[in-house]
Amino acid sequence: MSSPEENAALAAELAEKEAAARALAAEIAALRKRLGGPVSPLAPARFPALAPVAGVTLAADAAGVRYKGRDDVMLVRLEAGSVLAGTFTRSSTRAAPVLWCEARLAALATAAPAPRAIVVNSGNANAFTGAAGTEAVERVARATADALGLAPGDVMMASTGVIGEPLPAERIEASLSRLAAGLSTETWERAARAIMTTDTFPKGATATVEIGGTPVTVSGFAKGSGMIAPDMATMLVFIFTDAAVRPPVLQALVSALTEQTFNAITVDSDTSTSDTLIVGATGQAPMAPIERAESPEADLLRGALGTVMRDLAIQVVKDGEGATKLAEITVTGAESDRAARKVGLAIANSPLVKTALAGEDPNWGRIVMAVGKSGEKADRDRLSIRFGDIPVAEAGWVAPAYSEAAGAAYMRRQELEIGVDLGVGPGRATVWTCDLTKRYVEINADYRS
Amino acid sequence: MSSPEENAALAAELAEKEAAARALAAEIAALRKRLGGPVSPLAPARFPALAPVAGVTLAADAAGVRYKGRDDVMLVRLEAGSVLAGTFTRSSTRAAPVLWCEARLAALATAAPAPRAIVVNSGNANAFTGAAGTEAVERVARATADALGLAPGDVMMASTGVIGEPLPAERIEASLSRLAAGLSTETWERAARAIMTTDTFPKGATATVEIGGTPVTVSGFAKGSGMIAPDMATMLVFIFTDAAVRPPVLQALVSALTEQTFNAITVDSDTSTSDTLIVGATGQAPMAPIERAESPEADLLRGALGTVMRDLAIQVVKDGEGATKLAEITVTGAESDRAARKVGLAIANSPLVKTALAGEDPNWGRIVMAVGKSGEKADRDRLSIRFGDIPVAEAGWVAPAYSEAAGAAYMRRQELEIGVDLGVGPGRATVWTCDLTKRYVEINADYRS
Repeated sequence: MSSPEENAALAAELAEKEAAARALAAEIAALRKRLGGPVSPLAPARFPALAPVAGVTLAADAAGVRYKGRDDVMLVRLEAGSVLAGTFTRSSTRAAPVLWCEARLAALATAAPAPRAIVVNSGNANAFTGAAGTEAVERVARATADALGLAPGDVMMASTGVIGEPLPAERIEASLSRLAAGLSTETWERAARAIMTTDTFPKGATATVEIGGTPVTVSGFAKGSGMIAPDMATMLVFIFTDAAVRPPVLQALVSALTEQTFNAITVDSDTSTSDTLIVGATGQAPMAPIERAESPEADLLRGALGTVMRDLAIQVVKDGEGATKLAEITVTGAESDRAARKVGLAIANSPLVKTALAGEDPNWGRIVMAVGKSGEKADRDRLSIRFGDIPVAEAGWVAPAYSEAAGAAYMRRQELEIGVDLGVGPGRATVWTCDLTKRYVEINADYRS
Repeated sequence: MSSPEENAALAAELAEKEAAARALAAEIAALRKRLGGPVSPLAPARFPALAPVAGVTLAADAAGVRYKGRDDVMLVRLEAGSVLAGTFTRSSTRAAPVLWCEARLAALATAAPAPRAIVVNSGNANAFTGAAGTEAVERVARATADALGLAPGDVMMASTGVIGEPLPAERIEASLSRLAAGLSTETWERAARAIMTTDTFPKGATATVEIGGTPVTVSGFAKGSGMIAPDMATMLVFIFTDAAVRPPVLQALVSALTEQTFNAITVDSDTSTSDTLIVGATGQAPMAPIERAESPEADLLRGALGTVMRDLAIQVVKDGEGATKLAEITVTGAESDRAARKVGLAIANSPLVKTALAGEDPNWGRIVMAVGKSGEKADRDRLSIRFGDIPVAEAGWVAPAYSEAAGAAYMRRQELEIGVDLGVGPGRATVWTCDLTKRYVEINADYRS
């Protein structure tokens, strides 16, 4: 304990240093803005070379929707005979383009031919824009259809960016002739970059597999990194394959894989009004169409599609706002797979777990807390926790051989594996999250653009 | 765009400033530690004068459980004839003292006399401590009973602090004769301070009401502010009244009021393994016992008890780790009160909403997003949002008269009222939250003690 005089001097010193820290933070923010922001430390070294997919052409253009001097619209064209599947945000305040796409996919149930074009813009999410939002969607669909010689119902759409502002549809319309003229089999990276908002790197993944002797390709790209004022950084994913597959089989594979990939990741637990995943299969590979979801052929396609989806999902977490750590959390011994996923997400979304990751703090007590709050069955006295191969807690207490030093050393890794066994059943699930850093707060609170 | 050389120079300048910021942050943390940490800017000017409650005596002592040089145990004694009610954490990894208290209250159903003592320690939560934890609870109960001439089953207990470490029961045992000798009707503030962990101020509240011409007092205190490594900062609440009331009536009042107060606040969405609320009614006021929860007398007691519980709950939010803003979020027009509360908590727990509060950013799009993710019914085109009296959004779009300047000015207040109408039913609820600041991350990640 210090005297009141000493305390007053310390308090004055503290106030001075706090003011200096605020000034420094403003300078750092300004520098980051001039540099275009830092790339996530978890980013891959480069965008992967995506294998072209027969029947798929892409183009990107600078329409000036909101950003200046960069591509902000992209167009994908699929050859006739393609089929589509998709999954969308479960938000009850879904954006206008999401409602449009859901209606297009619902129409497929009547055996109508699948949409043949996907047009996407960044800079404006066309979300919470009332009737004007629906009109803008219809205008862009009509213009895209005109440019490609299709009907408006053949066009899928997604938008990401600021919400509550009217979408300047005329700027996208003005780009469409250039987009249609620029379609190519090779434009993957430009397309991936055109849909970025707060992303610090473009995200692509590719896989090949032989199905009945025929080589089949799956290539796709994604954007998403959390959210930033005033942009709402939606997750958008577009994946294409030349496999031949019946529409209900493709939808079944995509729905099941979404649960294990894009619905098993979290950056900040917040759900965009615009999340959209579209998978197109052109059927251009010389093979008989896959007729059943339970078949060896479907398993092969599931494997390739799952590889691409998992890769893209993990890249989204690695680009989480302010992220410096990736954590893979595997929960076993739950009552069911669904229960395991819920426990995993309770851990992955816990601010206290995520700040512990940021601080490289082997704070397993917070994992116990998160298991407890999940609402799923767990037996406190059978619960066990591992960091990688290190047993941390078992039988309701700290593991006898565990040392804090070993735990702390493990936490210094950039990519972490956390294992939790609940000891009550056969259910298991894996989820991915990133840490919660001061930079996350900074991005989302301190520096309005 | 700058040249590569300019960019490299900017990047070097950025790296230098980032290093300086880290060094400064460490100095600031060290200063804060020497000063004992700052008090929340939302703290009340002083601890209120709590009215004594006939039949209640309290004592505090420095047992040295973990902290040095401060009180860390407190004891409450209730006169014979008192009744008790309580609510506890719903965590499935509940701490040993919580299981003990739940068993004591369950025994009341057999019309056994209510427990007459409450002993609480800070510094160690006795959570996730296996069989040793249960033994420690039994030792402390026995020692407390011996010191007061009661049976061990007459003793309620709570512990808060580090988890996973054995509770040094012998230190609490050694304090009990001093505690018993020090019992007084006036020791409220010392008791409130003895149970603090990461709290920056002690929390007390008091109310009086006349029931059938008899003045009745309700006084209580609480602790809780979030969590901090390696302590798990549980919420503990102890409230006392001299009202005469039947045990089931008291329990009904307490359970219903908990939903509207302590279960309607959130700091970081994380649930402690130890949350405990105990309400004791001594029956020393000269009145006939309240026999029914639906009666004018019960309504009067509900009013006084609700005032104290709401006051304490809001004080816990005001002491949220790193908090600089208090937000009261009222949701109306929901399908049910339960649905309104769920939507309110989805908004109150959203990291994007909470960082917007910290940044004084009137980002209503994030509120739309949080409503959408709640899973409850909402009509995007009927949704309306208000900041205080300012209409922000209505009928699915920004309100015609809304100006960003007015929203930004409102957000600079320290205490904010956010209104959300869902437009689908009669349900309503109010919840309270604080902002998410860099200081929260700092407390929970950067500086391990």
